[in-house]
Amino acid sequence: MAGLPTLAVVGATGAVGTVMCELLTGRRNVWGEIRLLASERSAGRKVRCRGEELTVQVLTEEALDGVDVAMFDVPDEVAAHWAPIAVSRGAIVVDNSGAFRMDPDVPLVVPEINPEQLRNRPRGIVANANCTTLAMIVAVAPLHRQYGLRELVLASYQAVSGAGQGGADALHDQLAKVAGDRLLGSRTGDVRQAVGDDLGPFPAPLALNVVPWAGSLADGGWSSEEMKMRNESRKILGLPDLKVSATCVRVPVVTGHSVAVHAVFATEIDADGARGVLRNAPGVIVVDDPAAGEFPMPIDAVGTDPSWVGRIRRAVDDPRALDFFVTGDNLRKGAALNTAQIAELLAKTLTHP
Amino acid sequence: MAGLPTLAVVGATGAVGTVMCELLTGRRNVWGEIRLLASERSAGRKVRCRGEELTVQVLTEEALDGVDVAMFDVPDEVAAHWAPIAVSRGAIVVDNSGAFRMDPDVPLVVPEINPEQLRNRPRGIVANANCTTLAMIVAVAPLHRQYGLRELVLASYQAVSGAGQGGADALHDQLAKVAGDRLLGSRTGDVRQAVGDDLGPFPAPLALNVVPWAGSLADGGWSSEEMKMRNESRKILGLPDLKVSATCVRVPVVTGHSVAVHAVFATEIDADGARGVLRNAPGVIVVDDPAAGEFPMPIDAVGTDPSWVGRIRRAVDDPRALDFFVTGDNLRKGAALNTAQIAELLAKTLTHP
Repeated sequence: MAGLPTLAVVGATGAVGTVMCELLTGRRNVWGEIRLLASERSAGRKVRCRGEELTVQVLTEEALDGVDVAMFDVPDEVAAHWAPIAVSRGAIVVDNSGAFRMDPDVPLVVPEINPEQLRNRPRGIVANANCTTLAMIVAVAPLHRQYGLRELVLASYQAVSGAGQGGADALHDQLAKVAGDRLLGSRTGDVRQAVGDDLGPFPAPLALNVVPWAGSLADGGWSSEEMKMRNESRKILGLPDLKVSATCVRVPVVTGHSVAVHAVFATEIDADGARGVLRNAPGVIVVDDPAAGEFPMPIDAVGTDPSWVGRIRRAVDDPRALDFFVTGDNLRKGAALNTAQIAELLAKTLTHP
Repeated sequence: MAGLPTLAVVGATGAVGTVMCELLTGRRNVWGEIRLLASERSAGRKVRCRGEELTVQVLTEEALDGVDVAMFDVPDEVAAHWAPIAVSRGAIVVDNSGAFRMDPDVPLVVPEINPEQLRNRPRGIVANANCTTLAMIVAVAPLHRQYGLRELVLASYQAVSGAGQGGADALHDQLAKVAGDRLLGSRTGDVRQAVGDDLGPFPAPLALNVVPWAGSLADGGWSSEEMKMRNESRKILGLPDLKVSATCVRVPVVTGHSVAVHAVFATEIDADGARGVLRNAPGVIVVDDPAAGEFPMPIDAVGTDPSWVGRIRRAVDDPRALDFFVTGDNLRKGAALNTAQIAELLAKTLTHP
């Protein structure tokens, strides 16, 4: 592995970090040393990665020395503090938090869409988009190139692991409490009573429920997650005037974010043409035969790389509008995979044969 | 109860019929005799209704004699056959199936919106709207009256009991199979394997999943449920040119249909104005304080009468568009309650004091 760049995975023990170690195991000859870093709480833990047993080290300034690329999957405030330190120690940072995504000096990169923006990184940081945006934008971008996107109306069906391992744990705990009682879900408040205070990172029970809220409160009653879908879509597509309305809803799914997309274009669009564009799009798989029970669903898309797209149909009342449904693994393309893809593009420019 | 009209409940033992008996128990001095009718399979069953123990009778022509109002909650083909027979025997039919909703000679009535259309029923049949349409239209109609509706983009989060008691049973069975295995939902196909063939009336597992399909295949890749939301909204609101795009998705919720609504109006709209309109609207409750964890959710709305509306916000990029989230009990306002309300309006015209 001489000559191959050194990678640090910061936040190696979270839900995304765990999937990242899986992904790195399947991708040889990209990285030399892989260094796993985390908070003191997780330091010392042993993690199998790329066939090696690695010991998680504490994130310190010194631990970043000699790192060529540092992938960050940590909370916004941790990334805001540590990413510039990693850069000052000589690393390029690929950050999966929300801390830098809208910084005009930080490119927001989806390798299938705008890889050329990787070159322009004045702060030494490249941002990874929000997991809900990523699932959807991989399908929207090729349609935009063909038909000229004007507007998006989005409604999400977001999995609990988007809120981290604590989200997945909370749903499993709640399901254990409600399963077996066939009367639950039929009386107001009965699920709240059965679940009790065990809400995990959510404002309400997820078992037998949907929660129309993700993130924090932004202006005008919007959630931060909804504003991310708007602002990140605009930045990734390079469309500062794109109209976007998103409603973000958490559902009782472990992993796999889905989005119902209503997209309005500059020109007329037909479903067969759109299907053809999507079939040829990188990172997209078309699953669209409702009569045969084939449509995108989280239980199928989880653990896979592409965005699954189906239910492709032209709006009945608007020849310029297309409706479709997309599902992607929020821990893979929505987080670890996109980060790994960006880091690998960077690695190619760093490798000294 | 002398002088009060006779009511027949056809399909008395299904999910909606069961809720209907609950509702009738709380509504005295409306009906004289209540006659419960069902298929041979359910005949002879004892059901408590309005404090009486009633025996379910087989639906026959003779069993309809002397009935003033017959509520039907049976499959489309059963309603198509039996509703005209009930009319020929002297009853007014209130039908909750899809058999007559788009018949120009059958009014499609939501008492809060278009009760005046009850008077014009040349076939002697009044139709009840689809459960997903009803949850949403109660909130949309008062906004239309104030601001002039032009377009709806809808995404639904539909409960399994919308597919009848078999839907609720299937979800409970599936939950019992997946609960307790904390690894489920993290690998492609693992939930399918755990659930096996026990899909109930659905094309895929609902536990730990969302299924972007409801109903049968209509033209252009649309589902019949999505076309109902479009066509019934147009008919109820009297807007034959309304643009509607709906995506209907089944979620693992027992009872309580939710809809993410993006509504475009003729005039500018602001969230506070819309909130005021909705607070004064009959059949609507506004629950809209995200910072306090207050938004509409099925676990709260189930078992209640109104449509719960929240997440009310003006589109960031379009001053004429409003986004909101609405949840209603699909067995109550979505079915039994609206039917009962229609029947009660009819009863008033039939009562001979």
